[in-house]
Amino acid sequence: MRESTITFEPTPLCDFTPLVRNALSNPGCTRIVFRPGRYDFHPELAVEKYLFISNNDEGLKRIAIPIFGREGFEIEATGARFVFHGGILPVAAVGCSALVLRGFSLDWEVPFHGEAEVLDADAAGVLLKIREGFSYQVRSGHLAFGGGSFILRNVLAFDARRRETAFQTRDNYGIESRYVARDAGERVVRLDARLSDPLPIPGDILALVDERRDYPGVFLDGCSDVLLDDVTIRHAGGMGVIGQCCSGLSLQRVTVAPDAQSGRMISTTADATHFVHCQGHVRLLDCVFENQMDDATNIHGIYAQVAGYSAADGLLVRLRHHQQFGVPFALPGHRLELARQATLASFHESVALGVEVLNKEFLRIRLAEPPSCEPVPGDVVANMSWNPEVEIRGCRSRGNRARGFLISSAGRVVIEDNDFHTPGAAILVASDARDWFESGPVRDLLIRRNRFETCNYGVWGKAAIQIAPRIERPDPSQPPYHGNIRIEDNTFTVFDPRIVFARSVRNLHITGNHIMTTDVYPPQNAQAPSWDVSTCQCVNTEHHPPAPDSKVRTACAAVF
Amino acid sequence: MRESTITFEPTPLCDFTPLVRNALSNPGCTRIVFRPGRYDFHPELAVEKYLFISNNDEGLKRIAIPIFGREGFEIEATGARFVFHGGILPVAAVGCSALVLRGFSLDWEVPFHGEAEVLDADAAGVLLKIREGFSYQVRSGHLAFGGGSFILRNVLAFDARRRETAFQTRDNYGIESRYVARDAGERVVRLDARLSDPLPIPGDILALVDERRDYPGVFLDGCSDVLLDDVTIRHAGGMGVIGQCCSGLSLQRVTVAPDAQSGRMISTTADATHFVHCQGHVRLLDCVFENQMDDATNIHGIYAQVAGYSAADGLLVRLRHHQQFGVPFALPGHRLELARQATLASFHESVALGVEVLNKEFLRIRLAEPPSCEPVPGDVVANMSWNPEVEIRGCRSRGNRARGFLISSAGRVVIEDNDFHTPGAAILVASDARDWFESGPVRDLLIRRNRFETCNYGVWGKAAIQIAPRIERPDPSQPPYHGNIRIEDNTFTVFDPRIVFARSVRNLHITGNHIMTTDVYPPQNAQAPSWDVSTCQCVNTEHHPPAPDSKVRTACAAVF
Repeated sequence: MRESTITFEPTPLCDFTPLVRNALSNPGCTRIVFRPGRYDFHPELAVEKYLFISNNDEGLKRIAIPIFGREGFEIEATGARFVFHGGILPVAAVGCSALVLRGFSLDWEVPFHGEAEVLDADAAGVLLKIREGFSYQVRSGHLAFGGGSFILRNVLAFDARRRETAFQTRDNYGIESRYVARDAGERVVRLDARLSDPLPIPGDILALVDERRDYPGVFLDGCSDVLLDDVTIRHAGGMGVIGQCCSGLSLQRVTVAPDAQSGRMISTTADATHFVHCQGHVRLLDCVFENQMDDATNIHGIYAQVAGYSAADGLLVRLRHHQQFGVPFALPGHRLELARQATLASFHESVALGVEVLNKEFLRIRLAEPPSCEPVPGDVVANMSWNPEVEIRGCRSRGNRARGFLISSAGRVVIEDNDFHTPGAAILVASDARDWFESGPVRDLLIRRNRFETCNYGVWGKAAIQIAPRIERPDPSQPPYHGNIRIEDNTFTVFDPRIVFARSVRNLHITGNHIMTTDVYPPQNAQAPSWDVSTCQCVNTEHHPPAPDSKVRTACAAVF
Repeated sequence: MRESTITFEPTPLCDFTPLVRNALSNPGCTRIVFRPGRYDFHPELAVEKYLFISNNDEGLKRIAIPIFGREGFEIEATGARFVFHGGILPVAAVGCSALVLRGFSLDWEVPFHGEAEVLDADAAGVLLKIREGFSYQVRSGHLAFGGGSFILRNVLAFDARRRETAFQTRDNYGIESRYVARDAGERVVRLDARLSDPLPIPGDILALVDERRDYPGVFLDGCSDVLLDDVTIRHAGGMGVIGQCCSGLSLQRVTVAPDAQSGRMISTTADATHFVHCQGHVRLLDCVFENQMDDATNIHGIYAQVAGYSAADGLLVRLRHHQQFGVPFALPGHRLELARQATLASFHESVALGVEVLNKEFLRIRLAEPPSCEPVPGDVVANMSWNPEVEIRGCRSRGNRARGFLISSAGRVVIEDNDFHTPGAAILVASDARDWFESGPVRDLLIRRNRFETCNYGVWGKAAIQIAPRIERPDPSQPPYHGNIRIEDNTFTVFDPRIVFARSVRNLHITGNHIMTTDVYPPQNAQAPSWDVSTCQCVNTEHHPPAPDSKVRTACAAVF
């Protein structure tokens, strides 16, 4: 079949949803070109599909650009501005290979969250001016956004001048059950509810957000060989880019950041990017992640929990985090690892022979090699076949809530030449089988030549680099959970000492890092160690010679 | 293939969901027998399917007994008690023919609603004792039921002695935004919120319900030739039996009523039965409908709304009521009728040539005969091919919220030898294209030899028999909306005069009815006419001679 290109021109007041739907219903179309300009997408006539989207909210979604089961497909949209209206998911690609998405920006006419300037704040509440461009309603004492379908469930203060979360500010989760909103007219609203300390100050911008993640920007499910090139995500009601069960994803020059012209503080209402159960490579090259309401990226597997076992029927396993429900857990032939929940200690590995999906929560899995030690309910299972190689280079992460890069993959991981200014840990290597059920030890992680610029000025981390698997009952007879982590030739500009926090690592090498001090923020933990390392094995730290500039001092010895 | 029967024996503590699932995954199994006794069903290992269930809530449902695409299938369960736990739909039959469901009762271990005895009530609130057997939680000032997934959105008072809605009591919709609950311990809870007048009195039982209808009892979708025989529905989190797009449904000896032993006041949290877009026959024979939270039955079509029209593309139509989303609207070959929204006046009929479902809300329909008068947005479309013949005989309807039988079908309808004691209209013939979008004029309705025992003691009706299509702008040049209604040889025992209220009927015959008076309730509308008939044509009333018993008086002349 000859390559067939369908080309769109921008047209004011036109709903492009049915036009793109029509183009994509043509199996001969392998390329859609959007000429530069603005394109509007409304949900009314969109394709609909029930999607389980990891770490976002499952549901029956309207999709503006539904790319299903395509081999070799390209969207070329350099200079095109996609503007979405209401409850619609911009791009969902399911079961595609050799997919290229290039050049567009995506935004919503009215965001799913609210932003407001603080006029006054005290222990009894806060007086707000809702910013222009945000649609809001006060109904029965509650604030709603995005046409009323999103309600206020968290408030977070941003420093307007620095365009980042206010120093040491905290979330206000659960506020929906303890506030009353009063509309004072002219976009002024009073929230009667004590906000968390430190209280915001006049001039701060409050992000007013729901916890729902219904409309991420780009969803990639079961795709291989995908390139996102020069894509800009201004907003999403969920994550910016979420990939699951994909093989070979490259994001280059992908920007997640508010549109400067709009004056908005917040970009996406959750992580900028997120990758679950991927394999092959995940590459983030020359990307920018700014002002989203959660981490810059998170690359992890899933711990499912053992609900039962018999030699005849095999394992009955259950997905535990509700935002992992329905996400494929394993395919026949995949290598699974069984571990104890409290220690995360692996006790059996086997190939999956058969996988029966009972519903979005439960699966039955037959193992090729029966475990010598019988699994008991509570044990967890990880899929070791879905662990990608990761490369993150030349990216910038700043201004968002929480952290930079969360890495839990057993594949080779390189994080090199990036710039971080995050309120929490810039890099977090965790894993847990209790709350998030995000699996994956790292086995080969190189963190090199990055610039960590006054990270950890918020409350979402213990150090610029934090390695902290959640092991509830450490077992000294077990090897450390993570392994082979090198932290080399990075530059840390710090306002307080905390640089590396590490637990349960075998072979941790910290060499050649430069440390500079700054007083841009007041130190919070002046007595804390710079290198807080314990329960690790084979730690190697090489002290860098002091630079002539007095602002640079050597790395302290690791404490373990 | 030989008939294959799988037989279950009751087994304490056993979850029958996976066993029944397994039996139904065997295509050779054509009959399942449940021996008498109790069977428990849990949701964990259930089949899951996204279901659009008319007038209930759509969603991804766990299903205990999923019967999909079967020709000739029987469940024989005389004496079997099915007990459900939590979020699970008992029976869903989709695309089946020649289906028999016999003999079981179904109930939930813990209902989806709450019931409480009134200890005290005044203008500031009400003090309640939650009845045993109902699980409840007070969280942040709100009451939740059914394990926390259902919250309080309506309160309705029941007279404990009469086991029916309290005289003239009213709903308390929207209470969730204006009450505070306080747990006083020992199942005593205070609700700070003024309830609607008349206030409940100590000893009344309050039904505490959500508006969600997630778990109806038996769902029949696109089935033909279905018999429910001797089935008892004690409770459901939604309707008791809901059938849509079915051809040939018979319910005989189906009881919807609380279990007397449980002491519960409420059966299902919505209608006992409901039939939408059916054809062939719908028969209710010797059924009992008691104490459900909405009508005994409602048999109707759907008005979709015109969203656009062009000669090239045909009609773009939109389902308007959110609980009709996703319900099939028409198939190619169906006869459609276009009407104006404000007058319900039909202006075009045509066969549908092609029907393209765009999503759960929008469809595109090509018509065989283009309308001479162009449809405009707001016009409505009804499917005249999905209008069943209806036969309702020997049924009893009482103690529930609202009405008895709601009939909107153009097929032949016979309602004969039934007993009514409903707080609203016993029979309502409506239709509207503004709120409920329930379509269908009646064209041949016989209401004969029924006993109407002090109906209309509540607030949900204008008379025992109410014929009231919602015509916003009556057009005297148009014929009446409904036609050919005979009300013959019925007995009405009344405490106030209102017997028949009729609007927009052509050929209304009221003959041979007996009226008896009673003082069991105080009359509310002593001056109201017994026969309140206007905007009708060809009304024929025959006065019955007075009986010797002074309690019996003749029918008054119809007023029109």
